[in-house]
Amino acid sequence: MDTPAPQRARRHGGRGGNARRSDTFRLDQMPWSVPCNTDQPTTPLNEDGCEAIHQGALYILAEIGVEFLNEEALALFRHAGCRVEGANVRMDADFVMDMLARAPAGFTITPRNPARAVPIGGAHMAFVNVSSPPSTWDMIRGKRTGDFESYREFLMLTQVFNCIHLVGGYPVEPVDLHPAIRHLDCIEQKLLLTDKPVHAYSLGRERVEDAMEMVRIAGGLSHAEFDAAPRMFTNINSVSPLRHDFPMIDGALRLARRGQPVIVTPFTLAGAMAPVTLAGAVAQSLAEALCAIALIQYAAPGAPVVIGTFTSNVDMRSGAPAFGTPEYMRATQMTGQLARRYRLPMRSSGVCTANIPDAQAMWETCNSLWAAVQSGSNIVYHAAGWLEGGLMASPEKFVMDCEMLQMIQRYFDPALSATTPDDLALDAIREVGAGGHFFGVQHTQERYETAFYSPIASDWRNYEAWERDGATDTVARAHRIYRNIVDSFSPPPMDEGIREELREFVARRKAEGGAPTDF
Amino acid sequence: MDTPAPQRARRHGGRGGNARRSDTFRLDQMPWSVPCNTDQPTTPLNEDGCEAIHQGALYILAEIGVEFLNEEALALFRHAGCRVEGANVRMDADFVMDMLARAPAGFTITPRNPARAVPIGGAHMAFVNVSSPPSTWDMIRGKRTGDFESYREFLMLTQVFNCIHLVGGYPVEPVDLHPAIRHLDCIEQKLLLTDKPVHAYSLGRERVEDAMEMVRIAGGLSHAEFDAAPRMFTNINSVSPLRHDFPMIDGALRLARRGQPVIVTPFTLAGAMAPVTLAGAVAQSLAEALCAIALIQYAAPGAPVVIGTFTSNVDMRSGAPAFGTPEYMRATQMTGQLARRYRLPMRSSGVCTANIPDAQAMWETCNSLWAAVQSGSNIVYHAAGWLEGGLMASPEKFVMDCEMLQMIQRYFDPALSATTPDDLALDAIREVGAGGHFFGVQHTQERYETAFYSPIASDWRNYEAWERDGATDTVARAHRIYRNIVDSFSPPPMDEGIREELREFVARRKAEGGAPTDF
Repeated sequence: MDTPAPQRARRHGGRGGNARRSDTFRLDQMPWSVPCNTDQPTTPLNEDGCEAIHQGALYILAEIGVEFLNEEALALFRHAGCRVEGANVRMDADFVMDMLARAPAGFTITPRNPARAVPIGGAHMAFVNVSSPPSTWDMIRGKRTGDFESYREFLMLTQVFNCIHLVGGYPVEPVDLHPAIRHLDCIEQKLLLTDKPVHAYSLGRERVEDAMEMVRIAGGLSHAEFDAAPRMFTNINSVSPLRHDFPMIDGALRLARRGQPVIVTPFTLAGAMAPVTLAGAVAQSLAEALCAIALIQYAAPGAPVVIGTFTSNVDMRSGAPAFGTPEYMRATQMTGQLARRYRLPMRSSGVCTANIPDAQAMWETCNSLWAAVQSGSNIVYHAAGWLEGGLMASPEKFVMDCEMLQMIQRYFDPALSATTPDDLALDAIREVGAGGHFFGVQHTQERYETAFYSPIASDWRNYEAWERDGATDTVARAHRIYRNIVDSFSPPPMDEGIREELREFVARRKAEGGAPTDF
Repeated sequence: MDTPAPQRARRHGGRGGNARRSDTFRLDQMPWSVPCNTDQPTTPLNEDGCEAIHQGALYILAEIGVEFLNEEALALFRHAGCRVEGANVRMDADFVMDMLARAPAGFTITPRNPARAVPIGGAHMAFVNVSSPPSTWDMIRGKRTGDFESYREFLMLTQVFNCIHLVGGYPVEPVDLHPAIRHLDCIEQKLLLTDKPVHAYSLGRERVEDAMEMVRIAGGLSHAEFDAAPRMFTNINSVSPLRHDFPMIDGALRLARRGQPVIVTPFTLAGAMAPVTLAGAVAQSLAEALCAIALIQYAAPGAPVVIGTFTSNVDMRSGAPAFGTPEYMRATQMTGQLARRYRLPMRSSGVCTANIPDAQAMWETCNSLWAAVQSGSNIVYHAAGWLEGGLMASPEKFVMDCEMLQMIQRYFDPALSATTPDDLALDAIREVGAGGHFFGVQHTQERYETAFYSPIASDWRNYEAWERDGATDTVARAHRIYRNIVDSFSPPPMDEGIREELREFVARRKAEGGAPTDF
C-alpha cells in the first residue's frame, strides 16, 4: 500500500541537507494496477430503447450526413461507395457495421516502461489525468494562465499517483511556450517525467509525426517495432453538430495507419450542440463517433479505436455547460450500452462545473466517476484535476480525485465480497460472543493492516483531534500532498543514450521551426 | 420546480415591515414525490455468496445465539420453542424463515397530512433527515452542543425540503431540555413544524406511549384508526455484537402491536463490533436484525418492519469509525441482496466521516448515497445533514445533501432515457444541420425550461462571474439558503382544536413528570 517512488528533495542546502530521515515524504498509496470493473453495468435503456438510439444514429449517418472538412477523408469515403456531396458524407448502415466489425474489442498500450502497459477494453478501467485546460488554480495562487512550470508539476502528479494510468493531453496549456515548438518541449517532458503511455494531440501533420517519433525514440524502438503495437494514443473531437475538421481527422489517420489508438469523442452538449433531449444527443454523438471510426477502419483495418462520450447538458439559465449532472450520468450509461453493442472500448470523463475544489466539485465529480463505473467505461479522461468545466486544472483537485479513484479501485477488489469460511468468520463471532470486541482477536489481528481502504487526503479523526491539529479542510491537506510530491519528485529512470537522442531530436526540430501555427 | 411553502418572514418591524416583495425567498426545488429507484441493484455476491452469507446468519442464530436483555422477549422466544439459556436465545432456521414470511414486503406510512403519505418497499426510496447527533456545526458558530433552537431549525429544513420524506430521530439532541420531558417538547415540535411521518425513539415505555398518543392526536385519529395503519415509525439498534437491550425491544414490541413500523438496524463496525471481514460483518448484522424481526413477527404477525444496515469499518489507525468507504458501499450492496431474498424493505444511510462540509464530506456522502441507490434501499437515514461520523448535524451540509438527493430523484426520472421520436429529435438534428446551434430551434424552445436538473446550491457560472459575485464556496451558499429557509419559515396548517389537544397532553404529561431518566 505504499509507493517506492518519491523521496523528499532537500530543499535547504548546507547543514540542513544532512537533516534527519523523518523529513522523508512517502505517499501511502495503493500499488500500480489497472482495475477491473466487477459491477454489472447500469442499463437505463431496455432493448427497444437501445435499438431506437442505434437506429437513430444510423439514420443520421444515412439520411442527414456528417461533414468532413478533410479531402483525404472525402476521397476515402467516395472510394468506399458512400454518398459524398461537398463536405457532406452519408453512409449506409451496412458499411458502418462492416467497418465497426473490423475494430478490436480491446488492445494494450505499452509505453517505454513495459511494466506500465495498460490494457484497454473488456472489464479494464484506466484513468487519465486532466487534459487541456488553459488555466490552473491552486489555493495559494488562485487562477492563473497555464505555464510550463505548472505543466511539469501536473506531469509529476500524473507519474507519482499509481491510480493514474495514462498521460493525457497537456494537463494545463503551457502558454509561455511558443505554439510552434510547444509540442516538442511538452512531449519531451511527458517522456522524461513519466513512463506511462502518453497522448499526442491531433493538431497538424508535424505535431503528430514528431510525437510518434519521440515516443519511438523514448521506447528504444525501431520503426517496425513502433508500428507493431500500440505505444501511445490520441483523442479527436468532432465539431458538433455533425462535423469533423481537418487536423483531427488527419492526425487520427496518421496514428491509425501506424497501429496507434484513436479515441473518438464528440462534444455534444444537449441544448447547444445537440438536441435538448438526451436520446437525441446520444444518438447524434454516436453518429459522429461511428462515422470517424468507420473511416479509420476503412483506411487502417483493425486499428485500435475507442468510442468516447462527452454528452452533458447546458445550464439553461446561462447557456454554460454543466457536468456531473443526472443528465450527464444517464447519457454516459446509455452510451455504454451502445458501446457494448458495438463491441468497442469506451471512454467517458471525470468532470465537474465547480470553480474551486469544494463540496460542489466533489459531488459533481463523484457523479461523473460513478457514471464511468456504471457505464463500463474503459478509459476515464480528466479523472484527476479538472475544474470549472475544463477551463482550469488544479493540483489540489488532482490529489482529491486520486482519493476517489483509489476508492473505486479498492471497491472493485473481490476481497470485499468474498465469502469463504475465513471471510464469514463464524469462529471469531463465536469467540467474541455477545458484548465483546473484535479488535483483540486473532482473526482481526491477522488482517487489520490490509482489511480496509487507507486514505491519502481524508482526515478520519474526530473533530477535537482534527481541530487541535490545525482544522485543515480537504483543500489544504491536498495542497500539502501536492507540494510534497513536487518537492520530492525524481523522474523515472531513462537510458542516457535515449535521453540524448530525444534531446537531439527536439533541438533539430526546433531549429527547423517546429510546426506551423496557422491553425 | 418550486415550492409553494416559505415566504421570507419580515425580520424588521415598523416601516421595514412594509418593504418590497422582492425580499421574498422562494426555494426553487423539485416538487414533493417519493422517487422510484429505476436501476437494477448492484450485486457483488453471486448466488453462492448470497447463500453463504444467508447460511452464516442462520448459523449464528442457531448455534451461537443472541442475547435479549428483555424478559418479555425471552418469554416469547421460550413460548415459540426457541432455546433460551439465561439471556442467550438460539433459534432454528425454520422458525426464523416462518416469521420472516409474516412480514409485509411493503407498507405506507400516513402522517397527519395524508398528502405526505410515504410508501415503503418495492422500488420506493424515501429520505430521512440526520438523526441523533449530540452536537451541531454551522459556518458561523462552529461546533456547539445541540439545543432546542437548533433542533427546531433542523425540523424547518426537514419540512421545507421536498426531497426529505420522513422526520427521523432528533436531528440534533436538544440538551437544554430536561431528559424527562424532552420527548414531549420534541415530538410536539415535530408534529407542529412538519406534516411528514415522524419517528419516535424506543427509549422506555413512557416515551413510546406518549409519542404514539401525540401522533394519534395530531392526526385527529381514534385509537382504532391509529392502530389500523402505519402513522409513524421507530428505529432500534442492537448492541453489537449479538445483544438486544431492554428499551429498544420494549419499544419495538409496543409499536408493532399497534401496527406501527419498526426499523431494525444493527450497528456493526467491521473490526470493532463485528468481524474485520465484510462477509462476517454482514452475516452478523443480518443475524442481529433477523432475530429481532422474528420476535416482532411472533408477537405481532404482519407488523410492518424494515431491515437496516449500518455496517462500515473502523479506521485501523485510530479505531474511529469511517463512513462512505468502499467497504461501506459493498457491505450495503450485499445487505441489499439479502434483504431482497427475505422480501423485506431495507434501510441504509447517507453518512460521512468528515468534520466540516467540504470536499471529503461530499465524496464520502456521495459514496453512501450511491450505495443506497445501488443496494435498492427503501429508506435512507441521515440522508441530509450528517457530519463527523454522526456526532454533528450541520444545516449547511443539510442543504448540500438535499442537492444530491434532488439529483438522485431527477436521475430516476424515466424522461432521461426515453426514446420516443420526440426524444430522438431526428428532425431537429436535420433542421440544425452541420455546424449549427440547437438553442434557437423549436424542439429546444419547447423543452428548455424543464429539460435539465436545476440546482439549488451549485454555482454553474464561470470563474470570473462567480468571482465578481463574491467567490462563495458551497458552504457559504448553503448557509444562505439555510438562513433564508429558517427566517421565512411558516409551519404547515393544523386545526386549532388539535393543536390545543396536543398542548394539553404535553402540559399534563409534564405535570406528571414525563418519563423516568434512569436509563
